[in-house]
Amino acid sequence: MAVNSPIPVAADLKPVAGIEIGYAEAGIKKPNRKDVLVMKLADGATVAGVFTLNRFCAAPVQVSKDNLAAVQAGGKAIRALVVNTGNANAGTGEEGLARAQATCAALAAELGCAPQQILPFSTGVILEPLPVEKIKAGLPAAVANLKQDNWFNAAEAIMTTDTQPKAGSRTVDIAGHTVTLTGISKGAGMIKPNMATMLGYLAFDAKVAQPVLDVLVKQAADQSFNCITIDGDTSTNDSFMLIATGAGTLEVNSVDSPEYKALAAAVTELSVFLAQSIIRDGEGATKFISITVEDGASMEECRKIAYSIAHSPLVKTAFFASDPNLGRILAAIGYAGVDDLDVSKINLYLDDVWVAKNGGRNPDYKEEDGQRVMKQSEITVRVKLARGTAASTVYTCDLSHDYVSINADYRS
Amino acid sequence: MAVNSPIPVAADLKPVAGIEIGYAEAGIKKPNRKDVLVMKLADGATVAGVFTLNRFCAAPVQVSKDNLAAVQAGGKAIRALVVNTGNANAGTGEEGLARAQATCAALAAELGCAPQQILPFSTGVILEPLPVEKIKAGLPAAVANLKQDNWFNAAEAIMTTDTQPKAGSRTVDIAGHTVTLTGISKGAGMIKPNMATMLGYLAFDAKVAQPVLDVLVKQAADQSFNCITIDGDTSTNDSFMLIATGAGTLEVNSVDSPEYKALAAAVTELSVFLAQSIIRDGEGATKFISITVEDGASMEECRKIAYSIAHSPLVKTAFFASDPNLGRILAAIGYAGVDDLDVSKINLYLDDVWVAKNGGRNPDYKEEDGQRVMKQSEITVRVKLARGTAASTVYTCDLSHDYVSINADYRS
Repeated sequence: MAVNSPIPVAADLKPVAGIEIGYAEAGIKKPNRKDVLVMKLADGATVAGVFTLNRFCAAPVQVSKDNLAAVQAGGKAIRALVVNTGNANAGTGEEGLARAQATCAALAAELGCAPQQILPFSTGVILEPLPVEKIKAGLPAAVANLKQDNWFNAAEAIMTTDTQPKAGSRTVDIAGHTVTLTGISKGAGMIKPNMATMLGYLAFDAKVAQPVLDVLVKQAADQSFNCITIDGDTSTNDSFMLIATGAGTLEVNSVDSPEYKALAAAVTELSVFLAQSIIRDGEGATKFISITVEDGASMEECRKIAYSIAHSPLVKTAFFASDPNLGRILAAIGYAGVDDLDVSKINLYLDDVWVAKNGGRNPDYKEEDGQRVMKQSEITVRVKLARGTAASTVYTCDLSHDYVSINADYRS
Repeated sequence: MAVNSPIPVAADLKPVAGIEIGYAEAGIKKPNRKDVLVMKLADGATVAGVFTLNRFCAAPVQVSKDNLAAVQAGGKAIRALVVNTGNANAGTGEEGLARAQATCAALAAELGCAPQQILPFSTGVILEPLPVEKIKAGLPAAVANLKQDNWFNAAEAIMTTDTQPKAGSRTVDIAGHTVTLTGISKGAGMIKPNMATMLGYLAFDAKVAQPVLDVLVKQAADQSFNCITIDGDTSTNDSFMLIATGAGTLEVNSVDSPEYKALAAAVTELSVFLAQSIIRDGEGATKFISITVEDGASMEECRKIAYSIAHSPLVKTAFFASDPNLGRILAAIGYAGVDDLDVSKINLYLDDVWVAKNGGRNPDYKEEDGQRVMKQSEITVRVKLARGTAASTVYTCDLSHDYVSINADYRS
């Protein structure tokens, strides 16, 4: 189903020393389905994350942010992460916070640590109480099957209506040290039945100081998970977590070191892969679209315009139809909110085809050239603003009948 | 097809003294179709308008703005408006401006006035050259059939893929004077094949000073055409024009007069009707949704949140499915961009059903109550922010399979 995105092979997903993974079928929403995931970290591991900006952020997001802040303030290290599907624990008020904390306490008791050393994550229906007793009942089984070689199961355990698991591994050599990175993600957009949430977890076996990891997670997210959109709906539970287990030989203590640069490049590349996997498996997606806006006065204005194009239902349905109805892209540029934009300087390309020249139709543009590109399953839209040197790229998919079907189906 | 919006009856559309209407079948895009409209104004008429904020605003929008600005600066009064369908004359650069001006010059020659006294409007495909010779060839026929009793034909002449004409009339008594108002509109969103544009024209027979009319058009638009959205796509050609023919007995020279207030109320009410008619005939619409956000700190933040809900594809597909998947509305409130929003104070109602209380599910809320409202063809979403006294209402429709079909159809 997903666009040019084969199902990962379990044997290709490399264990990362210092992280063990267990799962359970807790029957949270449906029986016979992996719906609880535990990731246990070795001593010396550091964790950093970025979270949804939605003001209705879910209870587990609030608890995870609090617990990470405690570590940053000198508290005990994070020992485990726990994820449940089937319920988002969002829009649930004080009671939701209590239930997220109860989940942490239950896992902490299993692992022999403090509740504050656990990071909880949830994805599923909003506005419904978290069935915390089911999760607690499932935790012993998840802890019992903890092992390093469980990444494929982990990718499956966080799926909601994703059509396939999303995971990838890399091995890189940095200053003579072999570093192994493995990550998983789930999407896509907010999904029937309110299966909210994009989640991403990326672990590697280098040792990274907390302040350095805090910088790295933001840098990687800004070039990956913060560059994707299915439908513009920001979920209440979005989270991307970076885990440095410290079980390998590489140590990174400064963002100014060459080791940091090499590690950041590897982490970012895998993050982009995981983020793009979400788009390729977007609800109803039939095409993968990259939108690059360049020669802008600021990265912010480039992003504004790229997102305006990516969110336009008219642009997205034109891609679905393979219709080179490219005036729709110009219109989306025009209403992006860049007030002093001089449209007479704008050039628009579809892959190698020069569509609009100086704000109007390129006299050499031929409809059949646009048609040829629009039929592809991977398309790059390039907008040149002639205002400066900044640039930004956003990844999205088309808007198909299946998107409406998936999201309009009554919750079953 | 349109939601609770019967086709207007020609005999119900009242002539407005001081404005004559003619139309032609110029074959701009398709044969045997009214596609050119001329509205000729009496001496003493005043005209004011609001236009798209899209930076890629169409050539006729630029010309109309220039010509209105010339009147405001003391130039000769507007004598006529001309509208064509089938081509938007947008994304067409300098040549597009020249063709819009050529249209004005041709009509001015027919009517014996200056080209600057004409306001041109276009709607249709973006990025393609305006077939100005066809328009010029059609103008004599349009001028030949100018008459007061032509409003139904006018409503038909500006249709693109609207499923029905949109028009309404009112008669009000203001300070002993009878005032007749008649208006037409077309929509909806940006339409296959790029039939961009919302257009609205409302004429009445009072005499209104130019500065007063300039205030009135903004006031009416802010409560009507600026409160609607189909898909968030702001067209390159959107325009709403208010015409005070001055042929009646009422004179309004000050915004502080009771006559102004009464006239503004009547104009606004008819504008809301015309704007809502566009939503009711929105592409693929099966439901009409009013979204009111109240108790806000400012009208701006209320609008932000209302539009965030109205633009969410997830909210819109839930309405299509009659699925009370109301966490999606909370999520849309949360990502609306109101940074200091305290979600624990938010209350959400669906018509009379209290869904979310203090940011969480109302304990008394029952799914069957939500279900009952979601099945209706007219639904009101009400959000209370508990931050102040400001409020804003936005009108929208659901997102259906037909929206995708309409917009994904290849341009024929």
